[in-house]
Amino acid sequence: MPYVNIKITKEGATAEQKAQLIHGVTRMLQDILGKNPQTTCVVIEEVDTDNWGIGGESITVRRKREREAKK
Amino acid sequence: MPYVNIKITKEGATAEQKAQLIHGVTRMLQDILGKNPQTTCVVIEEVDTDNWGIGGESITVRRKREREAKK
Amino acid sequence: MPYVNIKITKEGATAEQKAQLIHGVTRMLQDILGKNPQTTCVVIEEVDTDNWGIGGESITVRRKREREAKK
Amino acid sequence: MPYVNIKITKEGATAEQKAQLIHGVTRMLQDILGKNPQTTCVVIEEVDTDNWGIGGESITVRRKREREAKK
Amino acid sequence: MPYVNIKITKEGATAEQKAQLIHGVTRMLQDILGKNPQTTCVVIEEVDTDNWGIGGESITVRRKREREAKK
Amino acid sequence: MPYVNIKITKEGATAEQKAQLIHGVTRMLQDILGKNPQTTCVVIEEVDTDNWGIGGESITVRRKREREAKK
Repeated sequence: MPYVNIKITKEGATAEQKAQLIHGVTRMLQDILGKNPQTTCVVIEEVDTDNWGIGGESITVRRKREREAKK
Repeated sequence: MPYVNIKITKEGATAEQKAQLIHGVTRMLQDILGKNPQTTCVVIEEVDTDNWGIGGESITVRRKREREAKK
Repeated sequence: MPYVNIKITKEGATAEQKAQLIHGVTRMLQDILGKNPQTTCVVIEEVDTDNWGIGGESITVRRKREREAKK
Repeated sequence: MPYVNIKITKEGATAEQKAQLIHGVTRMLQDILGKNPQTTCVVIEEVDTDNWGIGGESITVRRKREREAKK
Repeated sequence: MPYVNIKITKEGATAEQKAQLIHGVTRMLQDILGKNPQTTCVVIEEVDTDNWGIGGESITVRRKREREAKK
Repeated sequence: MPYVNIKITKEGATAEQKAQLIHGVTRMLQDILGKNPQTTCVVIEEVDTDNWGIGGESITVRRKREREAKK
């Protein structure tokens, strides 16, 4: 019955990786809290990098700066 | 003033069905709790079946298994 | 499998009213979208009136003004 | 460390406008509550007008009515 | 930078169990998606059993029925 | 019509500070995106420090370490 919402930036997570997350989080709630996996719900949301901010700037801007720093 | 967020899998809900949900939930909050419908906000989010898990597996995998079971 | 989150102000909704909401929203998702009620999850959150704002002011302030207007 | 989720209708907000929102909200949490901007997270979600309801109708319907009223 | 929101019913999860969840989910996002744990944010919300519904009934009602079935 | 959800740790934000946040965020959405303040909804949630994790540890643990580092 737990509900888990995972928000990540849309940067290419594969269906396989998302399946691993769903499986792993569901099992963790069973192992730690004894929650019934049959009704554990996991929803993954992938957010455009323009729409995610941290430190007052968007991830789009941050990624660009990181790429330029590597040049 | 209530805020309702409905998450469903993206499996073809029509604009008409979504309009029915918005209307129905708004009226229900008015009938049961006396909430003013003018400021009741309903947001429907449709989530890719790869991104929704229940019972430790994605809906994509579950739907595939259900289809195969019917063969 | 739908997940519904209903946020209302904490102004005395009873367990009976909340049970009606849970029942009604679950049935509505079954009637309109054919969703299996057994896995429909409804979470109601009651928010302190200091913590809810609309029109740029908190509900606490709005309720106070409404009461004074009635005097 | 605060987490801010802003939901708006998908009606053409630009990357520049979203960057301003991210910057502004982050600074506001620093100014008012002393929160460290480095770990303030802002997520903007843009919702289809069919999926957003207020006053019991979708924004799609409301916008159409507003346009017709202007004719 | 991921944001994870875990909603469970308020039925006595300890600070130790919640710390395990925070630690486990953060590591899982690092292992599976390479996310930086320093900015991964996990928020656990514990919801009153009157306010959580599944299968059209509240958890309060379900737990009561389960207890009676055991007698 | 925008909906803003602000989650912060429960560490003593006053009603006055929360009113400032509600007012400021509402005006910002008007200034930047032209949103009607009358239907902008802001919900602030204050989360127990045991229930908020960053960097894989709870804020309770982090605050304790910070206090000890200052001794």
